[in-house]
Amino acid sequence: MPTPTGVGTEELRRANLRAILQTVHTHGPTTRAVLTKQLGLNRSTIGALTGELQSLGLVTEQTAVVGGRGRPSHLVVPSDDNVVVAVDVGVDRIAVALVGLGGEVLDRRTRGHQRGEHDVAHVVESVAQMIDETLSASRHTRCLGVGVAVPGAVRADDGLVRFAPNLGWVEEPFTELLSKRLNRPVSTGNDANLGVLAEHIRGAAVGFSDVAYLSASVGIGGGFLVGGRPLTGASGYAGEVGHMQVDGAGPACRCGAVGCWETKVGENVLLQRAGRLAGGGPEAVAEVIAAARAGEPRAAEAVNDVADWCGVGIRAIVNLFNPQVVVLGGSLAQVWRAAESRVVESVQRNTLLSPRGDAALRSAALGDDSPLIGAAELAFGPVLDHPQAVPQAV
Amino acid sequence: MPTPTGVGTEELRRANLRAILQTVHTHGPTTRAVLTKQLGLNRSTIGALTGELQSLGLVTEQTAVVGGRGRPSHLVVPSDDNVVVAVDVGVDRIAVALVGLGGEVLDRRTRGHQRGEHDVAHVVESVAQMIDETLSASRHTRCLGVGVAVPGAVRADDGLVRFAPNLGWVEEPFTELLSKRLNRPVSTGNDANLGVLAEHIRGAAVGFSDVAYLSASVGIGGGFLVGGRPLTGASGYAGEVGHMQVDGAGPACRCGAVGCWETKVGENVLLQRAGRLAGGGPEAVAEVIAAARAGEPRAAEAVNDVADWCGVGIRAIVNLFNPQVVVLGGSLAQVWRAAESRVVESVQRNTLLSPRGDAALRSAALGDDSPLIGAAELAFGPVLDHPQAVPQAV
Repeated sequence: MPTPTGVGTEELRRANLRAILQTVHTHGPTTRAVLTKQLGLNRSTIGALTGELQSLGLVTEQTAVVGGRGRPSHLVVPSDDNVVVAVDVGVDRIAVALVGLGGEVLDRRTRGHQRGEHDVAHVVESVAQMIDETLSASRHTRCLGVGVAVPGAVRADDGLVRFAPNLGWVEEPFTELLSKRLNRPVSTGNDANLGVLAEHIRGAAVGFSDVAYLSASVGIGGGFLVGGRPLTGASGYAGEVGHMQVDGAGPACRCGAVGCWETKVGENVLLQRAGRLAGGGPEAVAEVIAAARAGEPRAAEAVNDVADWCGVGIRAIVNLFNPQVVVLGGSLAQVWRAAESRVVESVQRNTLLSPRGDAALRSAALGDDSPLIGAAELAFGPVLDHPQAVPQAV
Repeated sequence: MPTPTGVGTEELRRANLRAILQTVHTHGPTTRAVLTKQLGLNRSTIGALTGELQSLGLVTEQTAVVGGRGRPSHLVVPSDDNVVVAVDVGVDRIAVALVGLGGEVLDRRTRGHQRGEHDVAHVVESVAQMIDETLSASRHTRCLGVGVAVPGAVRADDGLVRFAPNLGWVEEPFTELLSKRLNRPVSTGNDANLGVLAEHIRGAAVGFSDVAYLSASVGIGGGFLVGGRPLTGASGYAGEVGHMQVDGAGPACRCGAVGCWETKVGENVLLQRAGRLAGGGPEAVAEVIAAARAGEPRAAEAVNDVADWCGVGIRAIVNLFNPQVVVLGGSLAQVWRAAESRVVESVQRNTLLSPRGDAALRSAALGDDSPLIGAAELAFGPVLDHPQAVPQAV
């Protein structure tokens, strides 16, 4: 391993290690030549830094022939010996994935909650069992952490779930319980905040600084990037998009108010408006959309109506945040793909307003996995921030 | 003047000059002892820096007796030889103020637009005349800049007013025209963005990082501080709060959509609902509120109704941004003071939602002058950022 030279202070060294690790984690295998250029460091310094990352077991190096002139360059590759466990606690199901450094999903399992199983002890046990199974089946040698997405407001410092209405949770120490059960540190975040993070790193919002991520299932989650930074609000509860009042006439919302956006565009609203039973989840939504396309009047009417109301909420978000891109997830993505022009027409209804920068509307590139991938990024956070602190035990 | 010592690079020196000047501008006269402590520099360095600011004509020093032990300390005082001109172009009137370094309003004039005088050439000429008069009457020796607040979307780099619906402006080169007419640089910003800035520096939002400033006259402006930074959005058009749809039943809004928040709480809505003529401005709103208090049923009903709708919009903003404080300006402040409990009840209608950090509701501490004071801060910006670049000509 080359002697570390050319790096001034320990802090600078850490910043450079971080920059290299984040680059290969986000963009995949990268040549030393590219890293040298990107970081503005000399080749021997890069060699020393990648050597240190290699000895930490975080990257490997391969000799690759790059470019037309056939000059060989070392390719720095994230080592997928390192994994994290990502968990998405949805209302209908729990998803658990093993994600390698570099972002590849190596294993993915889902299990439905049964109705009534939202009791926090049940959920902790289900999640823990799924994690145990996943890690047992894994050939990967080092689990760097566990990240969890929940549909609720999460206190940043200890992961206390302040409120997750669709799970019926209030002030639940979910994170602490899961961490004790697993005997591992666990990080928990709001699903929509993790969704926008994932779409920004690896999805439909790469390269954008101002992003709105709106995702509907039973409720609607909102995650925002504002000037390149996550919108958290004063207490971490920002982004509650589902309870903007859009209609004075109602209906009553479970939050206590009336006419909230959620009462117009949630998954179950679409299902019931189409004459289906609530609770069928994404598959039932897909069935309604297929029926609408096949000409069933009631389904078509439901899709059109929900598309119009989708536009009403998106319009408010565009006017408030002036994002470059609005990323739609969950049933909002399904409705968007089914009735794109109808949604756009509704978004653009205030035509006489400011000639604002056009916000692009897109479905989530990571599909329903945005929060799950965001949970993986949450778990990778400490190592990406401080590579030298990676646990050496296997 | 003491020899500058103890400051490393020119950049560091500039940063320290900036820190001192910003401190005395924001907090008023400050002793060298306090500056020494705050900046973590030694006394001779502070002496050198304040000496330089003095020679630039930006501060004066007074010998003051401070504290119980009677030890004299130099008091660093912003020099009000330095002024800026602040302008607020409202829909009903133009306000022009002379504001000293340190933030004191030294002179203030208003002039009504006549109806139809929103033509940009007329407005430029009115503003310029008012500025000429103000500066002629002034004993102050150095005008550092001109800052203007307009009720519209402003392009950051050149002050082009993209859209100011209540003035009927679209793509108007107002800033360029005024700058040519005055033969001085002019900086222009959105009135609500400048309002939140002023309230954050000198008003009801001092010390808060997450702030919503909502101000109504004919339209509603929204200015936001998010994590301590102004919310601009991708193109500078963020904060358009007036066109969130709050009622599917209407009425039609001038923006082309229906049921926008502005159609429920604008100044003229209150007036018309109370049976008055539109266009009477803040005085007419005050008359309705007084009548309501005196028991006139139609006025009372109008105030209550508008208060309810105020709460609907504020609730959406609180849910989206989770601010520590919501600062209300213009007729929103009038309605808030008249019907506080009614507004709060409406804001809190979704009682079953997250036990979120309680956002405090307050009227703007700077009254209707928040945008004007913000425009002064905009004009002070270049000198506060780079004190050594202050124009030496008088």
